[in-house]
Amino acid sequence: MNIEIKFANNAEKGKELVEKVNKESKIAFALVLGNTEVAKIPGISAAGAFPEITDYTPAADAELLFYGECKCIKGIPVTPQGIPTPAIITQAMLQLTSTPCFVFNSGLKVKPHLPYIDLGGKPGNDIRKRNALENPNEVFQRARIFGRELAKSFDFIFIGESVAGGTTTALALLNALGIEAKVSSSMPANPIELKKKVVKEAFERAKIKEGELKNNPLKAVELFGDPTMPAFSGLALGFAERKQAILAGGTQAGAILAICSAINRELCENIAIATTKWIIKDESSDLPGIVKQACEEAPLLYADFDFSSSKMQGLKAYESGFVKEGVGAGGAALLCALHGISKELLLETIEANLKLLLEKWKK
Amino acid sequence: MNIEIKFANNAEKGKELVEKVNKESKIAFALVLGNTEVAKIPGISAAGAFPEITDYTPAADAELLFYGECKCIKGIPVTPQGIPTPAIITQAMLQLTSTPCFVFNSGLKVKPHLPYIDLGGKPGNDIRKRNALENPNEVFQRARIFGRELAKSFDFIFIGESVAGGTTTALALLNALGIEAKVSSSMPANPIELKKKVVKEAFERAKIKEGELKNNPLKAVELFGDPTMPAFSGLALGFAERKQAILAGGTQAGAILAICSAINRELCENIAIATTKWIIKDESSDLPGIVKQACEEAPLLYADFDFSSSKMQGLKAYESGFVKEGVGAGGAALLCALHGISKELLLETIEANLKLLLEKWKK
Repeated sequence: MNIEIKFANNAEKGKELVEKVNKESKIAFALVLGNTEVAKIPGISAAGAFPEITDYTPAADAELLFYGECKCIKGIPVTPQGIPTPAIITQAMLQLTSTPCFVFNSGLKVKPHLPYIDLGGKPGNDIRKRNALENPNEVFQRARIFGRELAKSFDFIFIGESVAGGTTTALALLNALGIEAKVSSSMPANPIELKKKVVKEAFERAKIKEGELKNNPLKAVELFGDPTMPAFSGLALGFAERKQAILAGGTQAGAILAICSAINRELCENIAIATTKWIIKDESSDLPGIVKQACEEAPLLYADFDFSSSKMQGLKAYESGFVKEGVGAGGAALLCALHGISKELLLETIEANLKLLLEKWKK
Repeated sequence: MNIEIKFANNAEKGKELVEKVNKESKIAFALVLGNTEVAKIPGISAAGAFPEITDYTPAADAELLFYGECKCIKGIPVTPQGIPTPAIITQAMLQLTSTPCFVFNSGLKVKPHLPYIDLGGKPGNDIRKRNALENPNEVFQRARIFGRELAKSFDFIFIGESVAGGTTTALALLNALGIEAKVSSSMPANPIELKKKVVKEAFERAKIKEGELKNNPLKAVELFGDPTMPAFSGLALGFAERKQAILAGGTQAGAILAICSAINRELCENIAIATTKWIIKDESSDLPGIVKQACEEAPLLYADFDFSSSKMQGLKAYESGFVKEGVGAGGAALLCALHGISKELLLETIEANLKLLLEKWKK
């Protein structure tokens, strides 16, 4: 069965975008990796079996895409319950299509064993205690340059991220820009009160009020963000100067849209968001609400793909609200839809890869 | 006047390659940067006004391409006589065509202020004293992966390098592979005896005879090479698995061809070399001779472009045997020819850029 493409904001423009893609289209996939100490605040992130291992999650996610297994850790990134990283969806997409993948180090503690584009950034700090980043402007500029280079040859870029703790920094960022946000979580019970507390403490530390940095988005990134933000937004804006950029993610991608829109509203004409069905269905978060506030006319697309027909436990868990999005999984499913790949083939590929990994892991 | 394309080896196959390029062709330019302590052996390199500054040359070359000026040094890289880097040719090509440029850090002491692909390498050692590199295999593998990714979307890649001291390590490498080589120099009086002495000392240290590593090219790179070698050859071979790679350089590119050929003779079917007219005219070196030994059927192309009609002193000096090649200058001139850019326009662009730089520099 074909994977249907659906729309959760500006369906008209979303459909136009889909119609523009054809067999001749040159499409790139980009993955922005970063680490932030925010991930280690107890209870914040499930992107890793325990807080310390979240340092390894982004690098391991990227390695899975290139090698079909991780190099910096044994096994693959899982939640404390053993549910696999959404990178398995992106991995399958890269196998099934011939999309080239570019990996960016926006500020990593643990670097992946693969060729990555270095943007000169450093890992992010705990925003309750100090400013998040030292040099977001430099990272932003470098990412924008690379986005421009890619736009010389590619027609579309899908950009995803992997940063544990990212929905909390997204909340802080969105609030600093005056956007009311319900951000999502990799856990079924979204620790939203804890996230709000972290944001409140960060705002108090920096003596900033909600909405105060509306016109200074890179300052907001510096105070409250994480390293992926200047990289992701710079890459998207640089590419959107000439071609179409698709932010592949959940509420974190919503934060990127808000940054892009605050820097250059006009370029957002060329920016859309692609997310997963799990994010759209999630009642604890509200990505469409964020998109509407960040840039009303931005199309929000998602592929009608989930794991409900899978018999594998780790995948089934996604249907109960675990994980939901990350590593551009929603964009990857959309890319499969655009390539005419069937639901069955995508699911089979993911399951086969996962079985292979579980066997290796047992050894 | 059109820039004529000429051939110094396998003209038939070279012409076929030229005919394959059309307006729809997707072409990428790659620049591999590295440092080696060999550059600091007194008298070896002119790629920098004095030995210590050669650490900055590769980074400064790359910055010139992206910003039209350097960030890590004041001014631009020059020889001790004040003759500008060949990067000015590549810079003009990037302005005149819409070729995307990818910069690689294969092992740098000084990193450029721009987005670069990190391959996990380290600067090279003085080969008289110790092994050149620690992990050429890892760098080679990562570069090959990136080459494969680029080949998914690009039809041709032109690869250049910037590494001071590179012709000396090229000589050592070629000899280790059993290739009799006359390498070129950035100086009119090629210090060939000094280079031979360095190579002799390195071979004695490692207890290796000429030709002994014929079937173990990455071992030769480890013992006697520089960081650009595993990166450059990996990138070329990864790309050549599907598409056409053009090594843009002088006798250093000849060494890369030899490495590629020793690793996978068959893939060299998809590899050509593009160099400058200055290298072809140079009587102290013999690139065609190296190419014939490394891979007999590899086309050697060059554009009929030089600075003989320029009135600027620094450029005129190229006609007396200074500089000759580097930063993919020969490939850049060839790319201009393939894009139908006239000799006059290319020269005017280079001169205008250089004047702008000299004015800035005076301030």
